Amino acid sequence: MATYDPRTQKLLTFHDSVPRFLDGRDTPRAYLERCLDVIETREPEVQAFVVMNIDGARAAADEATRRYAEGRPLSNIDGMPIGIKDLFETKDMPTQMGSPVWAGWESGRDAAHVHGLRKAGAVVLGKLVTTELGFSFPGKTRNPFDPGRTPGGSSSGSAAAIGAGMVPAAIGSQVAGSVIRPAGYCGNVAIKPTYGALNRGGGHSSLSQSHIGIHAGSIEDAWATCWQIANLAGGDVGYPGLYGALEPMAPTKPTRLVRLETVLWPSVDDESKAAFETVIEHLKRQGVTIISRAEDADVETYEALTADALELTLQICLFELRWPLGAYRERGPGMLSESMLERLAEADKQTLDDYRAMLERRDQVRKAYAALKAKADGFIALSSPGPAPKGLHSTGSPAMNAATSMTGTPVWSLPLLAADGMPLGVQLGGFPHEDAKVTGHARWLMDSFLTQG
Amino acid sequence: MATYDPRTQKLLTFHDSVPRFLDGRDTPRAYLERCLDVIETREPEVQAFVVMNIDGARAAADEATRRYAEGRPLSNIDGMPIGIKDLFETKDMPTQMGSPVWAGWESGRDAAHVHGLRKAGAVVLGKLVTTELGFSFPGKTRNPFDPGRTPGGSSSGSAAAIGAGMVPAAIGSQVAGSVIRPAGYCGNVAIKPTYGALNRGGGHSSLSQSHIGIHAGSIEDAWATCWQIANLAGGDVGYPGLYGALEPMAPTKPTRLVRLETVLWPSVDDESKAAFETVIEHLKRQGVTIISRAEDADVETYEALTADALELTLQICLFELRWPLGAYRERGPGMLSESMLERLAEADKQTLDDYRAMLERRDQVRKAYAALKAKADGFIALSSPGPAPKGLHSTGSPAMNAATSMTGTPVWSLPLLAADGMPLGVQLGGFPHEDAKVTGHARWLMDSFLTQG
Repeated sequence: MATYDPRTQKLLTFHDSVPRFLDGRDTPRAYLERCLDVIETREPEVQAFVVMNIDGARAAADEATRRYAEGRPLSNIDGMPIGIKDLFETKDMPTQMGSPVWAGWESGRDAAHVHGLRKAGAVVLGKLVTTELGFSFPGKTRNPFDPGRTPGGSSSGSAAAIGAGMVPAAIGSQVAGSVIRPAGYCGNVAIKPTYGALNRGGGHSSLSQSHIGIHAGSIEDAWATCWQIANLAGGDVGYPGLYGALEPMAPTKPTRLVRLETVLWPSVDDESKAAFETVIEHLKRQGVTIISRAEDADVETYEALTADALELTLQICLFELRWPLGAYRERGPGMLSESMLERLAEADKQTLDDYRAMLERRDQVRKAYAALKAKADGFIALSSPGPAPKGLHSTGSPAMNAATSMTGTPVWSLPLLAADGMPLGVQLGGFPHEDAKVTGHARWLMDSFLTQG
Repeated sequence: MATYDPRTQKLLTFHDSVPRFLDGRDTPRAYLERCLDVIETREPEVQAFVVMNIDGARAAADEATRRYAEGRPLSNIDGMPIGIKDLFETKDMPTQMGSPVWAGWESGRDAAHVHGLRKAGAVVLGKLVTTELGFSFPGKTRNPFDPGRTPGGSSSGSAAAIGAGMVPAAIGSQVAGSVIRPAGYCGNVAIKPTYGALNRGGGHSSLSQSHIGIHAGSIEDAWATCWQIANLAGGDVGYPGLYGALEPMAPTKPTRLVRLETVLWPSVDDESKAAFETVIEHLKRQGVTIISRAEDADVETYEALTADALELTLQICLFELRWPLGAYRERGPGMLSESMLERLAEADKQTLDDYRAMLERRDQVRKAYAALKAKADGFIALSSPGPAPKGLHSTGSPAMNAATSMTGTPVWSLPLLAADGMPLGVQLGGFPHEDAKVTGHARWLMDSFLTQG
């Protein structure tokens, strides 16, 4: 197996093909066929997909091809092949959620974001493996850079499909670290936008920290996907949706960034720590001020408050999952994994007062994060406590991502680093509704670090 | 047809039967059989139910009967027959939402609140008619006090079943005025609690103003139903749920109430206006200070701001319904009513910026209402602009209820009045999370007005 190098690794991109679609040198159908070739080669090992609708995708790609030939594509993602995490409904494929409860289930409709994507002309190619109901019990997918390692979860198939170059974009979702962590493990670009920015209707993604996220081969394609969803399907009901222009913010150097360690820093391996320091050194050389817990009391307050962010996230989710999991449990044995049943037994003991106390603690975390806005443009951290762990029995720890899910902030995972011959992602985050701004920062960091860093 | 008189009209109650269940003079099974007798007599005319599970209800009532005999009921609503608005999922009956889109659909699971109700021992008897997807296109139900008049909507069957004395409690839901208005038309007691107080999971009730509400024959049974749902199924995810004790607040006289006219006051018929004045006069005689737009600038501001509350509510809902209605429309003709298709065509023209502007306007309404908290305990108004209109083609106007749905405040409808020989409800509302307090006020008003007023 070749050693992963973020500077030479090629990811599949779509936005740079559009000029060739418009002048006829290439077509969405030919683009799709190239994706299918990669899938044919890599899927037997990677196993990213639960199901595909190849005929439907070819028909959609042909329609897009016609639209480009006529000079009137529907959007900047018209003809873009995309995979959908199998927590979300699709009218042409079953939605099975990695769970026996939903085996074979067909809702007959598209989830809100899928409906929006099709309006934009995107080619919905297949459903991507998720862990059981988006929690920790793993699916079949393997890391595309080492089949003996996890791809992460719960957006396992989404991250693996991008890492393997099967599609240029894939939908994931995150409650604790289900987009950013697998994206880091699989060398993806990914964004978890501001909470509420993308409509979650039509899927098993309705917890109070659930976000839709995008895995992609480029910041440009991820941003375009977000924008089209927000503008064609809206944000969550009651939320203002994604802010920002159709074109992603131009690469922009941030002025000041908070360096976040998270509770897992002491357990990060030396190679990953050293790799992260190269990013920090690069930022400093470029004149970016780095603020960390060692010298800033507000950062220390936030780091200390978020030491149990993962546990708090899990406890909040457990209360919110008493239904529907309690209803599924009643259907009899085998419907939920042992690990899920154990968690549900914990949830049975929670009271409404317990839940209120947890929501108040989460509000404290949000306030502590908001206090950092006066002193920095955002934060930088590792996407995970090291590269993808060996073995397929666990999807790794989301403890480096849980706090930024709690705060509902926009976060990118960027494939900047390597450790143990595997991808190692870097999180770059901002403040709620500043998705466009942090996208400019992410583009600057990708360009400057990978070419000069 | 006898003329309706709120002072002599008997509604079916449950809480006062519990002592007889405990000492064996009565049983939940016998109580259910009495409900079934009423249903057998009244249902051919009223048509409140879509479907019933009588065998399942009898089995559940027998279990409750055994628990009382053993001196250990599950809760204060153990054995209580209840009907569920057909927007919400039930594991033993189809969920058809008054729409061909959902004809025959069985989700195989209970909605969150149904799951909670069964945990409390409630006897889920059947599904109650809703208008199409909870909007305006009517179902088959008729007003129990005059079959030539609408029961109101969208909780048509829920209100009619209570008005006819078929069950002591029924679940409804409200986005604009779908609980309070039909409750008023059908002589119900009903509560629309604070936004987020009761878990909406598992049903077509996911708009940013959707609330679950309870129709009942008494404040005590409605409160008990709310409390059990909140404590066994939680509030909406991310919300703190219903505040208050298991026992409803004792009857308490409010000190000051805002008298709200709403935009429809000029169109209210003289008899209804005069009836409402008898409540106002009663309050004044009892020493309650009444504050109205004529003498208070903040009340005038709120009344003026909410003059288009219904239109704003509808426009917000339309944006939020682009999905899933857009997906249903694609299935072909006949899936949506003409009125729904016309609205959806309007929604197609809306942009994310339009939606943001509407959310900002809603926030202004919320702030204007919050400004009244310093000067009053809550508000009083008619539940509707007169008694149920004649005819079955329209469910009447929710324009007197839309603003209090926008503000997410707790509101009771109380069957205090009559006009044109029909029930005429009075709204008594409070401020968010003060559900318990306004419940004490509602008990006081019911007792004092109907016995002394």
